Amino acid sequence: MSFREDGHAAVEWAADYLERVGELPVLAQVKPGDIRSRLPASPPEQGEPFSAVLRDLDEILLPGTTHWQHPRFFAYFSVSSAEPGILAELLAATLNSVGFLWRTAPASTELELLVCDWVAQLLGLPQSWHGHIEDTASTSTLAALIAARHNTGRNVVVASEHAHSAAEKDARMLGMEFRPVPTDAEFRLRPDALELGDVAVVVATVGTTSVASVDPVSAIADRCAAAGTWLHVDAAYAGSAMVCPELRWAFDGVERADSLVVNAHKWMFTPMDCSLLWTSRPDEFRDAFSLVPEFLRTTDEGAFNLSEYGPALGRRFRSLKLWAILRCYGREGLQARIREAIRLAELFEGWVRDEPGWELCAPRHFSLVCFRREGPDEENEALLERVNASGEIFISHTRLNGRYVLRLAIGNERTTEDDVRRAWDLLRHTAVK
Amino acid sequence: MSFREDGHAAVEWAADYLERVGELPVLAQVKPGDIRSRLPASPPEQGEPFSAVLRDLDEILLPGTTHWQHPRFFAYFSVSSAEPGILAELLAATLNSVGFLWRTAPASTELELLVCDWVAQLLGLPQSWHGHIEDTASTSTLAALIAARHNTGRNVVVASEHAHSAAEKDARMLGMEFRPVPTDAEFRLRPDALELGDVAVVVATVGTTSVASVDPVSAIADRCAAAGTWLHVDAAYAGSAMVCPELRWAFDGVERADSLVVNAHKWMFTPMDCSLLWTSRPDEFRDAFSLVPEFLRTTDEGAFNLSEYGPALGRRFRSLKLWAILRCYGREGLQARIREAIRLAELFEGWVRDEPGWELCAPRHFSLVCFRREGPDEENEALLERVNASGEIFISHTRLNGRYVLRLAIGNERTTEDDVRRAWDLLRHTAVK
Repeated sequence: MSFREDGHAAVEWAADYLERVGELPVLAQVKPGDIRSRLPASPPEQGEPFSAVLRDLDEILLPGTTHWQHPRFFAYFSVSSAEPGILAELLAATLNSVGFLWRTAPASTELELLVCDWVAQLLGLPQSWHGHIEDTASTSTLAALIAARHNTGRNVVVASEHAHSAAEKDARMLGMEFRPVPTDAEFRLRPDALELGDVAVVVATVGTTSVASVDPVSAIADRCAAAGTWLHVDAAYAGSAMVCPELRWAFDGVERADSLVVNAHKWMFTPMDCSLLWTSRPDEFRDAFSLVPEFLRTTDEGAFNLSEYGPALGRRFRSLKLWAILRCYGREGLQARIREAIRLAELFEGWVRDEPGWELCAPRHFSLVCFRREGPDEENEALLERVNASGEIFISHTRLNGRYVLRLAIGNERTTEDDVRRAWDLLRHTAVK
Repeated sequence: MSFREDGHAAVEWAADYLERVGELPVLAQVKPGDIRSRLPASPPEQGEPFSAVLRDLDEILLPGTTHWQHPRFFAYFSVSSAEPGILAELLAATLNSVGFLWRTAPASTELELLVCDWVAQLLGLPQSWHGHIEDTASTSTLAALIAARHNTGRNVVVASEHAHSAAEKDARMLGMEFRPVPTDAEFRLRPDALELGDVAVVVATVGTTSVASVDPVSAIADRCAAAGTWLHVDAAYAGSAMVCPELRWAFDGVERADSLVVNAHKWMFTPMDCSLLWTSRPDEFRDAFSLVPEFLRTTDEGAFNLSEYGPALGRRFRSLKLWAILRCYGREGLQARIREAIRLAELFEGWVRDEPGWELCAPRHFSLVCFRREGPDEENEALLERVNASGEIFISHTRLNGRYVLRLAIGNERTTEDDVRRAWDLLRHTAVK
């Protein structure tokens, strides 16, 4: 292949894709097995040109793609893979730095520490914290649970019933006991329900997955401090919004956490995967994770090996894409995008509130609206299936107080007021059919 | 920014880099803190053009980069990030598919299953196995340990003293007991030393990190079967070599494993990160990892959610780069590259064998040569530091039978006979200084 020629073709494909993604059906209109049945069952004997890969991506894989970059992707948490980050992934794959030791990737190691400090400044976090990057919040929370168990010698994980399922799954993987605690009327963990005598770690959430509710971190921190319990804060989605000072109320008490996760690939416009994990107790992390066999011993004085602070040994150059985005957007660019997403969510919330036959199901925080059509769950479920099947929008659901609830999340940087209006029109028209 | 224009500039940078990487010092010639001190302590307020990122990558980060793509990178296991894979990472970041459910990424989910089947065919693995992709072997082995504990109800992990440190680290993270077992004169796990009554899992290694020794998997499988112990095989490095039928002896018995890890980012020319994990017991994996909260419930009949088979919920489109490489290289292309690396390692081995004052320290398997200068450890350690400081080559070390041993690993697809000759000349000339 000619890397230069094929590379330019790939860039053209990517640029065309980003220009037209809004015209494609956002939810893939295929059935399980459709894509695979169109691909050969065995690998080729001889190599093929890269143009064949690009052609099959276009003709076979694209129809089976749910478009996360689509401006009317409103499901789960809507995200963006921003252009500087996309190009940085090309550059990171070109360098292929593997950062298990400082020596094997000095620039990657030092840039990772630097961008974590940069983001800490942007979000108003303590400057003394140590940050590094994991793949996903599942892993970041897993690491926090491991450090907490190692440090406290206890084996119980506590989180609200609205915490992300990763907390329970991580606990199960580690052989730890998971105890859910009830929430209040606004879906926030009730600190008075905490009994922490034998608890290793409380996972408090700023921006829960179902409703973006905000646990009272400060009150939880009081309880944890009294009981010698580790406090891990999961702000995977909402953490990025703290770049806006007017939203910092949600981080009240976070400065007292032992560890904190914010996913840059959620609302900091970074391509998957890039989960930032800070800790105020780096020595405890190092105690839990450092294991240096002979083949990794080096004589680099003052070197700092990031593999000693988390589960994986091999680490790719994830900081490059986040650095590119922070450079190209700046604090103001991040703020503008987050404020616009919230403005659009407020608009949608207002339309629902004002429309007879519809109801809001939870206080709106950030850019997520939880709502439903008045009436039985089955009608809401059918409504969701119908609007998603249209390919016009993609929304998801949850269950609150036993009821089936629709979720519309805004976070893609290409989403406009027209897109949100189109979603609302589609929902209303489909509901009355 | 103009994505198209900036994208073409990024491709030009990448193409130029790959052309000149062999002329750069392979090991970064910087001290800890050097790179960070050249970067601003705070993020910018306003956005900057992408060209500024590219400039700083070139001027500030590159001098702090240890060049894994360099043809004279002979340390650890030498790897390649091949061109089709690099471009596929650009495309994957453009799509930004997040594959936690089939519905959120049908093409990514089905392609991941397909490429795992393709590689299973290439390596001669049972066609009934279920494969998926994790980030690194640390995570793949972690997942296997979790499945093994879940399935056996036991809490002990056994591996040879030459197994990768990830096995011990994973066990520690999970709160499992790690028991190393001794090896024979050729650094292979001794099946007669296995006592498996209370053992959840044995981690057998095909291609150990220090010396690429091959544990006798078949005999270990006999012991595991008798004791009801899970058998996990770590072939992170050497597994890719099984694409060559003449090397399949090393996989004897692997078909009886419960799980197997092969890192495509090690010797299958794939950019970091891409660790393939197969299991003959997918139901046990699903039992251990499946946890489907309300917000992830879907009605897609026949859908297959890969997040139910491993630790992480969020999953990026890792299969795309491996698919691109398998397409563009084909079986023959992979075989040719692996055979050439082994041929070069054999050459180097012969030079060491024939040279007075030097000794080979272990049987050579695959493309790794373990050797030393006759004499004290300190002289070998000083020799390693001096050749690495030259920027000409990068080698690493281990300790065998208590002695300091040099390792020269070949795996970069750009490495030529001239590069290996240059390494040998440099080692000999530096040793006599």
